[in-house]
Formats: sequence, structure tokens, C-alpha cells
Amino acid sequence: MSDVSLDLKRWVPWMRRAIQLALLAEGMTSPNPLVGAIVLDLNGNLVGEGFHAGAGKAHAEVAALAQAGDKSIDGTIIVTLEPCCHHGLTPPCTDAIIKSRLKRVVVGMIDPDPRVSGQGISRLKDAGLEVLDGVLKQECETINREFIFRVRNGRPWGILKWAMSLDGRVGLPNGSSKWITSQSSRNKVHQIRSKCDAIIVGGGTVRADDPILTSRGKSNFEPLRIVFSRSLDLPKSANLWDTKIAKTIIAYGPDGDEAFFSDLPEGPERLSLNSNDPAELLVSLCEKGCNKILWECGPELATSAIKSNCVQELVVFIAPKLLGGESAMSPLSTFGFESINSSYKLQHSFLETKDKDLCWRLIF
Amino acid sequence: MSDVSLDLKRWVPWMRRAIQLALLAEGMTSPNPLVGAIVLDLNGNLVGEGFHAGAGKAHAEVAALAQAGDKSIDGTIIVTLEPCCHHGLTPPCTDAIIKSRLKRVVVGMIDPDPRVSGQGISRLKDAGLEVLDGVLKQECETINREFIFRVRNGRPWGILKWAMSLDGRVGLPNGSSKWITSQSSRNKVHQIRSKCDAIIVGGGTVRADDPILTSRGKSNFEPLRIVFSRSLDLPKSANLWDTKIAKTIIAYGPDGDEAFFSDLPEGPERLSLNSNDPAELLVSLCEKGCNKILWECGPELATSAIKSNCVQELVVFIAPKLLGGESAMSPLSTFGFESINSSYKLQHSFLETKDKDLCWRLIF
Repeated sequence: MSDVSLDLKRWVPWMRRAIQLALLAEGMTSPNPLVGAIVLDLNGNLVGEGFHAGAGKAHAEVAALAQAGDKSIDGTIIVTLEPCCHHGLTPPCTDAIIKSRLKRVVVGMIDPDPRVSGQGISRLKDAGLEVLDGVLKQECETINREFIFRVRNGRPWGILKWAMSLDGRVGLPNGSSKWITSQSSRNKVHQIRSKCDAIIVGGGTVRADDPILTSRGKSNFEPLRIVFSRSLDLPKSANLWDTKIAKTIIAYGPDGDEAFFSDLPEGPERLSLNSNDPAELLVSLCEKGCNKILWECGPELATSAIKSNCVQELVVFIAPKLLGGESAMSPLSTFGFESINSSYKLQHSFLETKDKDLCWRLIF
Repeated sequence: MSDVSLDLKRWVPWMRRAIQLALLAEGMTSPNPLVGAIVLDLNGNLVGEGFHAGAGKAHAEVAALAQAGDKSIDGTIIVTLEPCCHHGLTPPCTDAIIKSRLKRVVVGMIDPDPRVSGQGISRLKDAGLEVLDGVLKQECETINREFIFRVRNGRPWGILKWAMSLDGRVGLPNGSSKWITSQSSRNKVHQIRSKCDAIIVGGGTVRADDPILTSRGKSNFEPLRIVFSRSLDLPKSANLWDTKIAKTIIAYGPDGDEAFFSDLPEGPERLSLNSNDPAELLVSLCEKGCNKILWECGPELATSAIKSNCVQELVVFIAPKLLGGESAMSPLSTFGFESINSSYKLQHSFLETKDKDLCWRLIF
């Protein structure tokens, strides 16, 4: 056993490099996971590197093997995720690996996708390759937390973001909220958007703030912009109806008055739902290939999303300002708790300062 | 000039030690400042150390000189604050220094007290002693920030503390608030109390929480406990009416119904004020010798205290919990701001974690 453990340790530095490669495509691969791969020749020299750059593009293993060419013979491939064994948008990676005449495959984590899930490794072993798995397993799982969550739950990983003053206000009683947080915090929000597949707001946010909801060029792939409205009581003119920069979807439940669409400019997509439950919207977004979505909505929709288990992570910006106001806007509306013990308790994930603000990330 | 600057630098390590000594009495010297002193003999060897342990007790210089005895002859005294030259509860330190036949006096900061304020240094110079001042001036001012503020403004330094959930709630709609923060945060509150001269709550806090408001033994001198009530609509029985552990003052404005006192147990002191303005209460507390007070009150009194410039520092505990509730208790009530630009902006002072909570200190 100790030999095996030593053997696994030997691959740790290479796996770390493969993880770095995988992260180069963060926010661009959905519904696929992030994957990085390294090919070493028979003497252990680096001869190929690759990462998965997006759905429909070459898988990491194929990209790394293409770089290596014949030097892969009797070599080793180190890959963050179990190689696929099914025909998706591209042929199975297991076939490419077997063809390349590698001797050994080192895997970070098993693919949770039921079409793979251990079968990729079995096929490689059956073909006579030496397979080691579980090298930096936890790190490999962390970079694909959202993908794994989506595959297991049939719903994207949800992040809820809000920006508030030190006294817990997201706006003044008159609705004014520009700007509670610093430019640096707002840049951070654009960066978070650039790693997400979709951003969801409610009708109230469109009416009050007329947002643009883009990453401000921080990503080549602007996330989908979703307006989730019960009533379709939305303005005829709004920045989100202009879909030149990014796509917009207007999602609505059974109470939505579809007359709204009659003189809406072309561009936004419609998405009719059977209920106003945020969970139903997320199932639709999962089908559209979203692994990770960002809630940037007002208190009512945020509370509804939390109640429906549609929020896995919180990002709260806290500015060193006091706004006051009993009737001022709060981040959340009522859960109906009778005691503090029954309140939601979150786990610390990351705390940083953004200019004078705090940015606290937590996990449900 | 460069010689003088070198000369000052030479005393920095000793001044640092004198500051450490001064801090040993933190929270116990009001209305006096914190002071530490070091005596070196003519060869520069440490022969005496002292600090001011409380009003009426020996001043730091006198304590250090007593330790040094005859070894002070031709020596140096390093003292964080300009020696006093007036008869207070103890005789002037300048006299003691002159009598001790020291050669040199090194001073951290000038005493802002108008009865001293440079005259102590003049008297020493007139007596033929070499006097250097301004060594670690900023550090010496920092440890006496509250004393300096009180002398200059005729009001104690005010700290406002609250404990809230991540969504900015200090209680549930039903009033429940035990406990939003961790035991470690509550211990920190007791420690903050132990460094303050008085703690102020409003009548609402007495009615809702029946608090004890002690440092739980973290100080030998429990702070004064002040109930500031407009109406004197207070319970007949309350933990604060038991003054065995700590003194209680019931302060009230012109609308207070004094019938309340008729069958109140003995113990609490009365303080009748001409208005409900927190600033008037603070002038009274200044006269009672308070340098630093802690507001632990509900939203209405906290807001009133901020509006009256009675709060110089904020300590906010933020627990990683979500309470929700539009009608749930907020830390502050209304300031009437029309735009975010006019809101109060604070300066970061210190951020720490207390178990899972954040504790953020800020200065107005």
C-alpha cells in the first residue's frame, strides 16, 4: 500500500499543473467541466499540455496528445477528470488515449456524469493501460464544484449576491442605491458574472435599476441575462431588451400577461413556465447547459430562491456606510422564523477587502 | 537638525516600553489618561518603571522614581505624557522630577489638559533639565485617544456596538435575538465593556432583554450602567436595579414620570436632564469622569446618538446567519438621507474573526 501511496505522490506536481491549465477556461466550458491534461514521454519529460476550452471544442486529453504526437508512446497522461468513453459533441477520449500507445493514465477524479462514472477507467484498464486515480482528488473536485452539483442535482449551482451598507441596507427608503459599494467591489461583481453562465433578476430590478448585467468585457462569453417575472409588468424599453451584447431571456409563470410581448423589440427570448417557483426556472437553465448562475435580484425573489434551495453560495459586499431607514430596502424579506436557532447558518468560504468594502463569500 | 532626529530615535525602544506599561491600566484610569514611565541611570541602565494605575493613585513618573531612588541622579526619565505641573489629587510630577536630580526628560506627547499643555515642559526646562518631546508621539496619542477627545470636546468618546446577522438584522420580527453571534463574540463584548467607563442602553432594551451589562469579571472596575429613558416607563424589577455588582444610573429627560421611582428598590441613582438629547447625558457623564462610553442600545437611541455626534467609533459583529424579515429589527432607524452620497461614511480601523463571526471596528 505504501508503494501505491508514494506512486500517487509522484504525480502531484503534474496534477497541480493540469489543474492550472483547466482553470484557464473558467466560465467558458458549461455545460462541460473544466479539464486539464499533461502528457509526459517515457522518460518523464513534458511533451504535451492541453485544456478543454469550451463545449464542442477538443477535450483536454486530445489537445495534449496532439501536442505530444509520437512522443506519447509508452508515456503517461495526467488528467484532472476521468477521460470520457462516450460520443458527445466529440469522440471518446479513451479511444484517443488507447490509440496514442500511452503506458499510464493518472486521473484526478472520477467523472460524476452517469455516462462515464468509472467506465472510462475500466475501458482503459481493459486495454492494458496502467491507471492511477485520486491524485489531488479534492482539488480536482473543487474546481468543478458547480459541474458536479449540476450533474448530481439536475440544477445549476446558485450564487446570490447583494451589496449593503454596514447597517444592512441595500437602498435608501426612496430606492436610491447608486452606489453603496466602491468601484472595486463593482469590478469584482463583473468578474463574478464573467464566471457564471446566467444572471437572474426579477421584474422589480428591471423597473428600478434598468441594469445591463454584463461582465463589462471581462469574459468573451457574456452570461445569459434572465428576467424572472410573475406578472410580465415590465417596461417597454430597457437595457436588457437590447441583445447585441448578450442574450436575454424573459421567463414568466402562469400569471404573466403575454400581451407585454406584442410590441417588445426583437431580441429577448421567451420562456414560459408552469409555476413561479425558482426551482422550475433552474431546471430549464440546466437544460440550456448552465452549471453556475448568479442571483442579482431584490429581497422577494432572493428569499424565494433561498427557500427553494436554489442558492448554494452567498457573496455579500459590505460598505462602511450607514444608510439608516426602517423602511429602507433590506437584502431579504421574511422567512417566518420563530427562533434564532432555526435561522439559516452559513459556512465561511472567503473574505477579502475591495477598496474600503468587505466581500464575504459563504456556502449554505 | 539631524543630530536632534538621531537623539529622538535613541529613545524609541524605551518609549515603546513606557507605552506597554501605560496600557497595563487600560480602562482603569478615567478621568485620567494612561501614562507609563521609565527611569534610566546616568549610564543608561534601567532603574525604575511605573504606570498610572488609577485616579488618586501615584502618577507614573512618581512610581518609576520611587523604584529608582538615588540612582535617578543625572539620569533620564522617559514618559509617555508631559509631566503635570498642577496640584490635582496628587502633587505635580514636575516637582518630583526636579527633586530627583534627573538630567533629562523624554516626553511622548504634550498633555492636552489646559492646566498643563506645555507648561510642564517649560517648568522642567526652567529648572535646567534637558527636555526632548515628540518621541513616538502618534503612538502615545493613540493609547489616549479617548482622553484627548474628552479634554478637547468636553464629552466622552462614544462607541456604538451592535450584533447582526449577515442580512443586517439585530432580531427576529418577534423580538428574539438570543443569540445571533457566537460565545466568542459575546466574550469580546464583555472585554470591550471592561475598557469603558459607562454603558448606555435605552428603556426598550431593559424591557426587552433585561440585560446585566457587566464585563463578567473581565475588569476589577465594572463600568457604570446607564439607562437613558424618555418616559421612565421601566419595569419595577430588572437586573440593572441590583447594584451590588455595578452602579446603575437612571437618566431621564423632562417627560420622565418620576412616580416610577416611588417603589423602586434602593441602589440605582437618578439623573434628571433638561432634554432627551444624548449629548446632554454625555456632558453629565464627562463630569462624572468618563473618558469612554459604550452605546449598547436599540435602533432609535443609536440613531439619535449618531445624529448628536455622540458616537465616534462603531463595533459591528456580523454573524454568518440569515434571519430575514421585513419587519425584523434593524440596527438603526431613519436618518432621512435622500442620496447615498449624504450617508455616513466610516474609516476602517480593525477587522477580526470571532469564531465564525466578523468583528469590524470603524471610526466616524
